[in-house]
Amino acid sequence: MSGEDAPAQEQKAEDQKQETKTSEQPKTESKPESKSTTEAPAASATATAADKPPEEEVFTYRSLVLSGHGGYDKVKLQVKKGKPAPKNGEVVVRVKACGLNFADLLGRQGLYDRLPSPPVTPGMECSGVIEAVGEEVTDRKVGDKVFVLNRFGMWQEVVTVAANHTFLMPEGMGFEEAAALPVNYITAYMILFDMGNLRPNQSVLVHMAAGGVGIAATQLCHTVKDVTVFGTASASKHETISEGGVTHPIDYRTRDYVEEVRKISPKGLDIVLDPLGGSDTHKGYNLLKPMGKLVTYGAANVLTGQRKNLLAMAKTWYNQFSVNAFSLMHSNKSMCGYHLGHLDGEFELISQVVAKLLDLHAQGKIKPKVDSTWHFEQVGDAMRRMQERNNIGKVILLPEPKKEEPKKEEEEKKEEKNEENKEEKKEEKKEEPKKEEAKKEEKQEEPKKE
Amino acid sequence: MSGEDAPAQEQKAEDQKQETKTSEQPKTESKPESKSTTEAPAASATATAADKPPEEEVFTYRSLVLSGHGGYDKVKLQVKKGKPAPKNGEVVVRVKACGLNFADLLGRQGLYDRLPSPPVTPGMECSGVIEAVGEEVTDRKVGDKVFVLNRFGMWQEVVTVAANHTFLMPEGMGFEEAAALPVNYITAYMILFDMGNLRPNQSVLVHMAAGGVGIAATQLCHTVKDVTVFGTASASKHETISEGGVTHPIDYRTRDYVEEVRKISPKGLDIVLDPLGGSDTHKGYNLLKPMGKLVTYGAANVLTGQRKNLLAMAKTWYNQFSVNAFSLMHSNKSMCGYHLGHLDGEFELISQVVAKLLDLHAQGKIKPKVDSTWHFEQVGDAMRRMQERNNIGKVILLPEPKKEEPKKEEEEKKEEKNEENKEEKKEEKKEEPKKEEAKKEEKQEEPKKE
Repeated sequence: MSGEDAPAQEQKAEDQKQETKTSEQPKTESKPESKSTTEAPAASATATAADKPPEEEVFTYRSLVLSGHGGYDKVKLQVKKGKPAPKNGEVVVRVKACGLNFADLLGRQGLYDRLPSPPVTPGMECSGVIEAVGEEVTDRKVGDKVFVLNRFGMWQEVVTVAANHTFLMPEGMGFEEAAALPVNYITAYMILFDMGNLRPNQSVLVHMAAGGVGIAATQLCHTVKDVTVFGTASASKHETISEGGVTHPIDYRTRDYVEEVRKISPKGLDIVLDPLGGSDTHKGYNLLKPMGKLVTYGAANVLTGQRKNLLAMAKTWYNQFSVNAFSLMHSNKSMCGYHLGHLDGEFELISQVVAKLLDLHAQGKIKPKVDSTWHFEQVGDAMRRMQERNNIGKVILLPEPKKEEPKKEEEEKKEEKNEENKEEKKEEKKEEPKKEEAKKEEKQEEPKKE
Repeated sequence: MSGEDAPAQEQKAEDQKQETKTSEQPKTESKPESKSTTEAPAASATATAADKPPEEEVFTYRSLVLSGHGGYDKVKLQVKKGKPAPKNGEVVVRVKACGLNFADLLGRQGLYDRLPSPPVTPGMECSGVIEAVGEEVTDRKVGDKVFVLNRFGMWQEVVTVAANHTFLMPEGMGFEEAAALPVNYITAYMILFDMGNLRPNQSVLVHMAAGGVGIAATQLCHTVKDVTVFGTASASKHETISEGGVTHPIDYRTRDYVEEVRKISPKGLDIVLDPLGGSDTHKGYNLLKPMGKLVTYGAANVLTGQRKNLLAMAKTWYNQFSVNAFSLMHSNKSMCGYHLGHLDGEFELISQVVAKLLDLHAQGKIKPKVDSTWHFEQVGDAMRRMQERNNIGKVILLPEPKKEEPKKEEEEKKEEKNEENKEEKKEEKKEEPKKEEAKKEEKQEEPKKE
């Protein structure tokens, strides 16, 4: 660890102090007296400038900033200054909840090509309330509750985005649920229906079935008649994923999933969804029956620890699946690649998918499952939870400051403890303020993937 | 040309003579007095044995046999002896019409791996009347009109096939139409819907749009709302394919089809159907828009002349398209391979497709287009017509002997002429007995592909 890698908790503690000073700002309408429109430099080195609140009228907002590629501590909480002003076609959203995605974990390690170089704010999705509307925006107004899909930059208290990247939240949908929807459900929908072309009576393999896309895909599978879902996850999650619709849960850590699938379905599968990459793409391809489709949409296998793992990368690249036209023809197979981050110009396509998802949501056929919620101060722990595959469902980040109440001393003690045991995930449990369920997961061996 | 390559016309003339002796056999019920069940050797060298009809009760039937790999003359008309007896699950069909496919042309040159080594009877489809039913066949009876899909062996007057390879012809469908349906429409349906996943408002590129699969695909495109069809064909066929539903006909011989497509649809296409292989597969892949699908289902580019062209094969192989998982992901594309010949174990899948096709046929949404019909004696000319891309629609072979009427002398003169000008396709015109249309095609330069 280089000296540059300041521990996340130190940074966090510092941020928390500065944040308590700005946390009481109004939540919907911006202050008209704010004049400054320049943002404070995002680099963490200069963030301490925010320690001295210059004048009362300065508009500030909390923002998570990736300061460099590396471990969990590279994402730092900063306070930005300057009231965002929407340009033509843009809206400003007061963010209530943000989604954490695998791409964010890859981005932190410098492995996600759709995230610009640090310093940069990560985050591809959030939900919130529209606070200002730019010119030429006709279908959004101040006060609209929306969820947002964007290439990056959503982990902030206030975001400015193109209006066509926002989607109206339906009545009755909560902000956390709304923030859990875009990336996972758009991905699951497009890989299953647009690429996989799922039909009645077919069989699907869902890797990481307890993850965000996994749960979304399982729910979407059951919008089609008589679909059989094979889902991999660690054994402790089997009950939950079975209840969620996985027909055959497979513990990939104690069993060879290829053999397990063949035992039940000797001819193979109609669709394999592959978020893993490397040798698992080969395995998936071989598991297809004639007319089967492999949809590869990630390379989770490259993510093995906090920091970039060159060996895992090399292995994944070396084992990268490649196929030629004749092989595909002779086996009657399809190989599809999906990457939501590269569809950011396809507003219309995405809007159509979101419309279908909201329709299914209204019918009660899909429902995002929130694993746990974490304040911005806890982003490191939130990332750890996902990276170590302890989540069942979506990990959500909340921009609102963590309440510092009477237990403050207790928490400070915990912070100290954390300093000592930073790499030990057992601490995580005590750090979770709002985790909803899955407590039983905590004491599991560390799974490599779900 | 080796001495082995006996000119097709000589062989044909000989066959015709012997055929006149057996052409009056009954068309539906087999003669009970037939005892011999052994087939005459299929090799052409021994076929002359059939010249001397042994006894009146011997059951014989006309069969086209590929005697070796090479030019048009390698497919010879023979008479086989012995009454076929259906085994369990089989039926015997009195064939009325057979379909000619690209795979048969490749097979003749030794380029189709699903056709066994010569001597062998080619032909993947036919229509006719069930003449005998084996044990355990419950859903077919003598007298049923059926069309048949089989890996090979359909170019015979009588065929014995598994009952589940036969499909009942609907009321009002003629034998020629029925023989034109299986290969082209099953292929077009599966590549467009099961692999291409065609949706409303999408765009499709159909190569060889005047060919059997091309016409089927164009008709099927229009069963979905607002689909735009780009179709390549030589200019003289544009009127016909436009009437058939091609929105933008492109003359691939005088224009770069990639440029032509880009002019009309700058973002590219949703689906490219690729029967060509080699560099055209690359072009097709590059023409896809995000979420687009390339379906490769042939390698027509290897077929450039009567005999195997090593250079064309090498070029097609050298340019064979290959793609890796990361490229597919980053471009959000799909690459699918289709080969009906390798789906011969998938009865259920095929039956479902046929059921959907018959439903569309009943609704008047699809209708096979027969380009021309040829008697078995004319198989060489029929193959030439297809190989030189002069057909618009399906080329059909008829097992029934060519009627030898008063014009016999005239025909003999033509045969002589053919001897002189065997490689000249201008002769073809005079050889066509029942060609339905497309006369204007005859004097075209030889197209390489449509």
